Amino acid sequence: MNLPQLNMIHNATMAILADTGVAFHSEKAVSLFKQHGFRTDGQLVFLTEQQVQSALEHVPSTFTLHARNPAKDILIGGGEPALAPGYGAPHVITANGTKRDATLADYHQFCKLGHSSDVINVTGFLMVDPIDLPHSHYHLDMLLANILYSDQPFMGSPLSVVTARDALEMVRILFGDISRPVMISNINALAPLQYAEEMAEALMANAGHRQPLLITGGGIMGATAPMKIAGLKVVSNASILAGIVLSQLAAPGVPVVYGAVGSPMDMRSGSFYLGSAEAHLSMAVGAALARYYNLPCRSGGGLTDAHTLDFQAGAQSGLALLATRLNRIDFVLHTCGILGAYMAMNLAKFIADEELWRTVAKMTTEVVVDEDSIDLETIREVGVGGQYLTHPRTFDLCRTEFQPTEIMNRLSYDSWQSSGDTDIAARAYRIAQKRLESYEQPDMDPTIQKDLENFVSKRKQA
Amino acid sequence: MNLPQLNMIHNATMAILADTGVAFHSEKAVSLFKQHGFRTDGQLVFLTEQQVQSALEHVPSTFTLHARNPAKDILIGGGEPALAPGYGAPHVITANGTKRDATLADYHQFCKLGHSSDVINVTGFLMVDPIDLPHSHYHLDMLLANILYSDQPFMGSPLSVVTARDALEMVRILFGDISRPVMISNINALAPLQYAEEMAEALMANAGHRQPLLITGGGIMGATAPMKIAGLKVVSNASILAGIVLSQLAAPGVPVVYGAVGSPMDMRSGSFYLGSAEAHLSMAVGAALARYYNLPCRSGGGLTDAHTLDFQAGAQSGLALLATRLNRIDFVLHTCGILGAYMAMNLAKFIADEELWRTVAKMTTEVVVDEDSIDLETIREVGVGGQYLTHPRTFDLCRTEFQPTEIMNRLSYDSWQSSGDTDIAARAYRIAQKRLESYEQPDMDPTIQKDLENFVSKRKQA
Repeated sequence: MNLPQLNMIHNATMAILADTGVAFHSEKAVSLFKQHGFRTDGQLVFLTEQQVQSALEHVPSTFTLHARNPAKDILIGGGEPALAPGYGAPHVITANGTKRDATLADYHQFCKLGHSSDVINVTGFLMVDPIDLPHSHYHLDMLLANILYSDQPFMGSPLSVVTARDALEMVRILFGDISRPVMISNINALAPLQYAEEMAEALMANAGHRQPLLITGGGIMGATAPMKIAGLKVVSNASILAGIVLSQLAAPGVPVVYGAVGSPMDMRSGSFYLGSAEAHLSMAVGAALARYYNLPCRSGGGLTDAHTLDFQAGAQSGLALLATRLNRIDFVLHTCGILGAYMAMNLAKFIADEELWRTVAKMTTEVVVDEDSIDLETIREVGVGGQYLTHPRTFDLCRTEFQPTEIMNRLSYDSWQSSGDTDIAARAYRIAQKRLESYEQPDMDPTIQKDLENFVSKRKQA
Repeated sequence: MNLPQLNMIHNATMAILADTGVAFHSEKAVSLFKQHGFRTDGQLVFLTEQQVQSALEHVPSTFTLHARNPAKDILIGGGEPALAPGYGAPHVITANGTKRDATLADYHQFCKLGHSSDVINVTGFLMVDPIDLPHSHYHLDMLLANILYSDQPFMGSPLSVVTARDALEMVRILFGDISRPVMISNINALAPLQYAEEMAEALMANAGHRQPLLITGGGIMGATAPMKIAGLKVVSNASILAGIVLSQLAAPGVPVVYGAVGSPMDMRSGSFYLGSAEAHLSMAVGAALARYYNLPCRSGGGLTDAHTLDFQAGAQSGLALLATRLNRIDFVLHTCGILGAYMAMNLAKFIADEELWRTVAKMTTEVVVDEDSIDLETIREVGVGGQYLTHPRTFDLCRTEFQPTEIMNRLSYDSWQSSGDTDIAARAYRIAQKRLESYEQPDMDPTIQKDLENFVSKRKQA
């Protein structure tokens, strides 16, 4: 994407915002726009380029998302990405490949895997969508698990203004106040060009307490969005920018992350699919737009349409994760664990995605070239036809130089067969189980824990 | 890789070529170096920077590899890569996942799949290593199959000077003369810093008839090459450049392709493995060196250490193929079909790799941004909360805009399960079978065919 192309998308977006507008199905949102002199018509809000630009001026290009363990604070937009697990999956694929509804016990497992991960650095929200709890209250259980089972930064519950406020109250109990960005909430526009009441008001509630927001406008190309990527990006850009403007009206300077997504629809089945070149290209243009506006950007992570850890899952997740690196995505949602086009989480996939992330992270680093890494002395010592295997330099480096594998086979066919351990999903599942068995809950002030538990139980009775 | 880093690797390479040298286990090769004033010591040849530079001056940065069907000529180094199937596999993994020795019948299948492929554009050599034929003669059968079963450009047989000469004679019969580059041969240096007699002399024979060469120096990091990538690249660069110099002494201006490979050794099993971040980084530095010398470059393709189409095979092959695109590799060997760290070919993997290639090729294109692709008119027509599904524009584009899939699942879990077709390898295998059933042999002048067959049968009796 060069600057003239980005200018074209920007200018087209400004035209749409000015003449077509974006619908906010929330009286509160529309009236906030009105207060600030925006033209509205019912639920439609129209934005001028100047109004957009003056909102964007307040948005920080980087911000720190603080954790209850200060060693786990993350600088978002600073180069190294924030990595959160899958989000919104109603199902779990079990170790034997069957699908079942997700439960709070599953949610707890993904909190624990995230906490013990060297890849995941943000505890997700709604990592699975538990069926065994009343949906009016289950955000409380998920938030409590986020806070107790991990000391990483965590995601908030933007399902409605009520759940957003509950999350903010739990932040206040946990930290004593809500003075810093500690919880990031995932706001999705509806395609095309709309915000549901719940999303708009959850956005405003979080912004009002200066808690960061992921603001995403995607769409399914050929269904809720144009067929071509340039058109998709204009529509989604309009939605995202309208949401960002709303956040800055609620509280100028609240950190936001630009959500760069979008996927095609399968014309045969009528369903959308995630594993596609078009989705990666859409991510690339979205990331370029985020940088154009000097904003951090988010994308999806190890996304696949496969329902099991097969060739498709490996190829699609690997390419998608590498694409996030290549596009310098700042916040990767769905990094680990997700299968079946957002529909299921899986313990083995979580472990497998962690390994893919380590690989794509290393393969996108710069190779060090200096006297030590060239090491002419060793090359001369080994000389022509010699071997490096028993050289002291090999001994010194052999434990650290190469990335180890937890799950990939490096045995010959015969050794692999006779190992009796030919199923990579089974290997990954065992590692997940071991991690869960050796999981240790991070320390927490017992008074704060009690206050949090009391709040949750009080709110459940409400 | 920036220029100072490349200069450092180049300078270290020149030091090794000058003081350590490269062994050519071929009297003919050493005596050619001697004739041209190179310092030698037994089989060791020492090269000065000036000698290397004056050889490099003759090498073209692009060249056309001609096919017997002129529509299938390939410009190598011109931006779009030459893509050849797997190379050197002794085994075949069958449809049920078992391993067996490869046969000429397998070889024929891969010729046919390559010919009917929209991805593969160079017929390989030694795509499998058939066990059912005497190795003294089997290059003749493979070359004949290359020529008869496909009208693409093809790879030569550089197993020895004898097999190289046979291939050259078959080229003469096929084209009437050997006036243009029509056959490219894969020359591998031995690590560290050596050329086997057969390779050196096959190199000279092909160069003598101005037939292009892939000249590759790799090595297993920690076994036959240094542990660090910078050191690996110095040693392999020295080998490659020495081979390139030999080619230019044999015939100034013969086209060569710089082979950018190298992989780590697994310190636990003692075997090398291909699916690693280090291999991709090694490819990146190798490709940068090729461009530094203004040469086309080659790498591996859909490489994996997996023995079946599992998560590992998908992830490793996908990342490896995308890496070749990102590094602008000009000649991709092992693009399709290979499993088990070079050890086996597989029909389903061939089909799966084709699809991965299409995906990585599309995801590395530039998105078109113009008035048509933005299409403000449609965005305004659909407006807020509308749908694109039934818009005429969607109808116009829905057959061409999105990359179709041959093998990937896009169904929901329940539909996928009830389809009874849950195994991606089985789907890919069916497609391979269909392609083989509908394969049509390209036309060939019967006199030339007879001459080729007579030559092969005469040589077999020799």
